[in-house]
Amino acid sequence: MIVTIVGTGLIGGSLAISLRSKGVATHIIGVDQNEDNLKKAQELNIIDEGASLEAAMQRSKVVILAIPVDGLLKVLPSILDNAGPQQVIMDVGSTKEKILALVAGHPHRGRFVAAHPMAGTEYSGPEAAIPNLFTNKTMVLCDVKNSDEDAVEIVEDMIDKLQMRLVYMNAEEHDLHTAYVSHISHITSFALALTVLQKEKEHGRIFELASGGFESTVRLAKSSPDMWVPIFKHNRHNVLDVLDEHIHQLQQMKDLLENEDYDAFYKLIQKSNKIRKILK
Amino acid sequence: MIVTIVGTGLIGGSLAISLRSKGVATHIIGVDQNEDNLKKAQELNIIDEGASLEAAMQRSKVVILAIPVDGLLKVLPSILDNAGPQQVIMDVGSTKEKILALVAGHPHRGRFVAAHPMAGTEYSGPEAAIPNLFTNKTMVLCDVKNSDEDAVEIVEDMIDKLQMRLVYMNAEEHDLHTAYVSHISHITSFALALTVLQKEKEHGRIFELASGGFESTVRLAKSSPDMWVPIFKHNRHNVLDVLDEHIHQLQQMKDLLENEDYDAFYKLIQKSNKIRKILK
Repeated sequence: MIVTIVGTGLIGGSLAISLRSKGVATHIIGVDQNEDNLKKAQELNIIDEGASLEAAMQRSKVVILAIPVDGLLKVLPSILDNAGPQQVIMDVGSTKEKILALVAGHPHRGRFVAAHPMAGTEYSGPEAAIPNLFTNKTMVLCDVKNSDEDAVEIVEDMIDKLQMRLVYMNAEEHDLHTAYVSHISHITSFALALTVLQKEKEHGRIFELASGGFESTVRLAKSSPDMWVPIFKHNRHNVLDVLDEHIHQLQQMKDLLENEDYDAFYKLIQKSNKIRKILK
Repeated sequence: MIVTIVGTGLIGGSLAISLRSKGVATHIIGVDQNEDNLKKAQELNIIDEGASLEAAMQRSKVVILAIPVDGLLKVLPSILDNAGPQQVIMDVGSTKEKILALVAGHPHRGRFVAAHPMAGTEYSGPEAAIPNLFTNKTMVLCDVKNSDEDAVEIVEDMIDKLQMRLVYMNAEEHDLHTAYVSHISHITSFALALTVLQKEKEHGRIFELASGGFESTVRLAKSSPDMWVPIFKHNRHNVLDVLDEHIHQLQQMKDLLENEDYDAFYKLIQKSNKIRKILK
């Protein structure tokens, strides 16, 4: 099966590596408006060839869109215009409501399968692509009732061969849930990095004492604004809700500390310890 | 050298394992008011024997206090009362100002060396003790000018054999810096866990989509309130300051998102990306 991957960065590149090694794709065409990235992806043997989107689409069974979600909004309608009746167009974007609303009435809507792999790292670009990024991770498929059955089957088979866990959700649920378990984690990391970088300017030496705990909570702050600003923009409503709740929780802790109510603080930490049942 | 370790949990236990394997301690006596922990530490061969504090002190060259900082405040003065002129008393607590103020005028102050290893995990108890927890990590020594030279030398030699990086600081600097690179990370993790656990009650399924990024920012929320409430209590002033700044940063991001000022949001993320130069 010939697969085109549009966007040869961390996600697209890692997909290319896995789709080839698991025998899903026999030939991978890369498309990227960033010519440096496309060249690098070829040099790293992540893709078999680079091509224009038009040329690549003519020869591919599956076209995977692995670009930031604002780019997706721009290109998806015209890609669907040109999609053949046997072709599958699939995205791997981090938000779903806006994208699915955009193509809701499209005559080729059935050829589109909306997917989101719950996997990634704080790095970007083809050099960041790694094998097995997706193994044992979750792939969400959204609103599959609006996709053609044969298109969904091809994507499900791909997910199976990638050894991923499959979850179905509607777009609304998806965007709410990712705000809570992904988008807010990035916001707190960005904010924490800013807090400490600011303090370092005044005091210096701050980072001499940084260790594993700090790194763990701040590493996502290395993530690219090109990817994340469009996500926050698309999921603005949910992200604002969760930010409100998170600021409220922090304010509550601050109040308890100000009032020296250590018993209540203790109980709050005990309550948060319940996360142990979720995280292995 | 006979070493007594008071508190045979994660930190004390890991220290015991390393001090023995690096040849610093020939015999390790464990002291713990929690009899279950003491028994477990013996079963796991972390300590050579368990004893009462009084009996252990009579036979030890070095006594290491690895207990929560509120416990430290209670026991340190009487331990120093009984310290011999050749003995070294060392703590490994996470805050320093209150402890050093407490023993400032003590006639045996010189036998005390205040230390803080910048290492740990979110787990606790002797079963959580691991080899090499401290290798290549930083050990902070505070206000060494008030400790006897020979006592500091013994501790420095220990740090060297543990293959740790040594940093000197005064207690005030230490407590400020740890608020920024350790204590706030725990608070944001606790708050994030509470935010998402709360949402799960309303919506369910939230955690199906949790992956590496979420785990990374929330894992510290598994940490024990027995250890952390006393730390926040001791370092209340600094923790309130950093909490203020952190809430301010989050509020700023929220405002930008509310006002849809994505250019400014982009610049803020770019600024936070500077953490790349700190984190490897």
